[in-house]
Amino acid sequence: MTSAPGHATSPGPLRLGVAGLGTVGAGLISLLRDNADIITARAGRPIEVTAVAARDRHRDRGIDLSRFRWHDTVAGLVSDPDVDVVVELIGGAEGTARELVESALAGGKPVVTANKALIALHGDRLARLSEQNRAPLLFEAAVAGGIPAIKTVREGLAADRLLWIGGILNGTCNYILTAMRETGRDFADVLAEAQALGYAEADPSTDVDGIDAAHKLTILASLAFGNPVIFESVHVEGIRRIGALDFSFARTLGYRIKLIGLARQSENGVEARVAPCLVPETSPVAQVDGVFNAVIAEGTYVGRLMVEGRGAGAGPTASAVAADLIDLARDTAVPVWGTRTTALTPVHSRPVSEREGAFYIRLAVEDRPGVIADIAAILRDCNVSLNSMIQHPSATQSAHVPLVLVTHPTPEAGMQAAVHKITSLPVVVSEPVLIRIENI
Amino acid sequence: MTSAPGHATSPGPLRLGVAGLGTVGAGLISLLRDNADIITARAGRPIEVTAVAARDRHRDRGIDLSRFRWHDTVAGLVSDPDVDVVVELIGGAEGTARELVESALAGGKPVVTANKALIALHGDRLARLSEQNRAPLLFEAAVAGGIPAIKTVREGLAADRLLWIGGILNGTCNYILTAMRETGRDFADVLAEAQALGYAEADPSTDVDGIDAAHKLTILASLAFGNPVIFESVHVEGIRRIGALDFSFARTLGYRIKLIGLARQSENGVEARVAPCLVPETSPVAQVDGVFNAVIAEGTYVGRLMVEGRGAGAGPTASAVAADLIDLARDTAVPVWGTRTTALTPVHSRPVSEREGAFYIRLAVEDRPGVIADIAAILRDCNVSLNSMIQHPSATQSAHVPLVLVTHPTPEAGMQAAVHKITSLPVVVSEPVLIRIENI
Repeated sequence: MTSAPGHATSPGPLRLGVAGLGTVGAGLISLLRDNADIITARAGRPIEVTAVAARDRHRDRGIDLSRFRWHDTVAGLVSDPDVDVVVELIGGAEGTARELVESALAGGKPVVTANKALIALHGDRLARLSEQNRAPLLFEAAVAGGIPAIKTVREGLAADRLLWIGGILNGTCNYILTAMRETGRDFADVLAEAQALGYAEADPSTDVDGIDAAHKLTILASLAFGNPVIFESVHVEGIRRIGALDFSFARTLGYRIKLIGLARQSENGVEARVAPCLVPETSPVAQVDGVFNAVIAEGTYVGRLMVEGRGAGAGPTASAVAADLIDLARDTAVPVWGTRTTALTPVHSRPVSEREGAFYIRLAVEDRPGVIADIAAILRDCNVSLNSMIQHPSATQSAHVPLVLVTHPTPEAGMQAAVHKITSLPVVVSEPVLIRIENI
Repeated sequence: MTSAPGHATSPGPLRLGVAGLGTVGAGLISLLRDNADIITARAGRPIEVTAVAARDRHRDRGIDLSRFRWHDTVAGLVSDPDVDVVVELIGGAEGTARELVESALAGGKPVVTANKALIALHGDRLARLSEQNRAPLLFEAAVAGGIPAIKTVREGLAADRLLWIGGILNGTCNYILTAMRETGRDFADVLAEAQALGYAEADPSTDVDGIDAAHKLTILASLAFGNPVIFESVHVEGIRRIGALDFSFARTLGYRIKLIGLARQSENGVEARVAPCLVPETSPVAQVDGVFNAVIAEGTYVGRLMVEGRGAGAGPTASAVAADLIDLARDTAVPVWGTRTTALTPVHSRPVSEREGAFYIRLAVEDRPGVIADIAAILRDCNVSLNSMIQHPSATQSAHVPLVLVTHPTPEAGMQAAVHKITSLPVVVSEPVLIRIENI
């Protein structure tokens, strides 16, 4: 019996050089050991770590590193003749990680990375480097952890024209927003708990300010619409300004509050943004709670699709990295953005001010006559049409009362102008909370 | 600038011979036309239909077929020198479809098919034929329509050991069960409506008796656990016996009723079954309503993952078929079951009688003293431990009352014995409705 190409003889192992031995690196080494039987069967050859590089040689990582050649520099790892594939698990868009990936690709060595910042900021350049040197660059773990989101978009939906893509792309924010909704506690309180539980970093800004989600959205939008989206043009808002009150108002209105990354393509181009949104409590994405992530897309033929799973953690991330390694061993890797780089033109996101949609605005106002008349007049003058106006069921004793306005779909520029004028009213006692409503 | 292998020159189009011009065939032809630009960019070459074969040459299908060479026989289509890939959209496990796929593979021509019955029943033989003749066989559209479920399992989760896989695999049943829950109407009533709307066939048995879902589960289980599962060994139950009453009881108990395909792997082997189940109303799969499908899996490293989308229809199915065609053009097709066939051994599903789990049983009993004592005694004698026993809130005027029992996890064999004895009680006036409870 003859056999499929590439399987005629049984080739030697695919030999890995792993840079970065944090929780993901350690998880990958355990996974390759625990699942060696199925990985060898599916890859058509064994996949083995031969060399590693990390800062601290002596730290106890709970795994036996004695079988691996140790490199103190990434240059040593890249040039190691017993390394067929470089696995970059250092992180960060610049410095050592970037240097490692660029030198490996330049030297014709395939790279697998979990580094979302690197791909979001330098994906265009790296795609060309990969193509020029015929060295595949795979990064399934960079978006939504264990969820094969990149394979789904780049291969599974390759035949369809996507209208929009997005979802819940940061588990830390989703955990915090879920806990705030369920317990009624405030952001700072829940963040402290998340940090204690290890769901949030000591410096949480990359997560809670939306930057991590924006990295992932940039990658998804680039894959979905076929051109690298320029990260710096993506509008980013975090979740710090969301208050406990907003969750009870959202519940009253039939919505949930999620940090949503969303990119749409129209004849005007791509518009990509990360921001807290009100989504209908009945929508699939509203059901995705805790540390789970979800990627949603809609195509002209395929309709709407959602993938949900664990967006972070050593196990899911290691699973995604190892799946990329099996693709390499099978020789089934596809180009970085799914097409030849000659077909690519980096694109800017359209400014969010061009969005048209509904809004939720929460104000704290003095409790006296005429206030609502003043606000309604401003909205009228800015051509913002009100859908509803409610006050919180739980009466407050203070002289200030929370007031929530929900608008009909309206251009964002007009809405921003109205909010600016409303803020300047003497009866408005604090910065309004403006949240977009997205019916995804 | 050099380029990746296979792209050095720009190759001619990938030429298709399409057999079967029903709604999916017509949908594929429109999709290849509408999305030709992105498909050519991603495939690295155009993908074009050159020849077609169908029964009725003169039927109006709303598409222009004049550009295609017409074949009256599948033999003609397979041997057409201008056909590089055969697309089988005829359907059915035997007859013309099987003949076409086998002869194409035997002749070394790659095949893309949406035929779940063919793959479920003959996948093992076809995998060997594919490998022997180095002719890839792709079937993404065979499971869950536009959802790239097969790619997700065979490639995206290739590195992990899956504990179980399953989900909602038949849109017709999910539509019917959703409508029954929402309207309180009976099965026959809702089925008639589904038939009128085109969501159910004139002969609905393949769908409502669970056979279609079992075909898909067989394919998913074979991919997930790495050996072809023998279709005939899969336990199959349909939804005809579910009554309007069961939905109100399920609601009272905090569950929803779904037709669930579920396959688990343990040290004893694989257990695969399709049957209506009670699932917690808070579980992700409980939120999947109407014609939508969902595939769920849990792996040791990746944790739990769910993919949700349109499980049928011309558009989603055409999108999946075309994605397979792009994989062929990219030369990234993987083996049928993800590994070389020499590593494969077909396996039987363990009998469902070996399952241990909780049950819901609805009885219609005479409304007189002692009834519950008799039933409780039988359950005790069969070592079935009761979790709860409820009567429906809405009182009935008849002499017969509905009575629902919910058990603790218990071996299925003992439960079946108990139900057999309960059925023989004179006070039990109709066949009990037994539904498994699955906490997925």
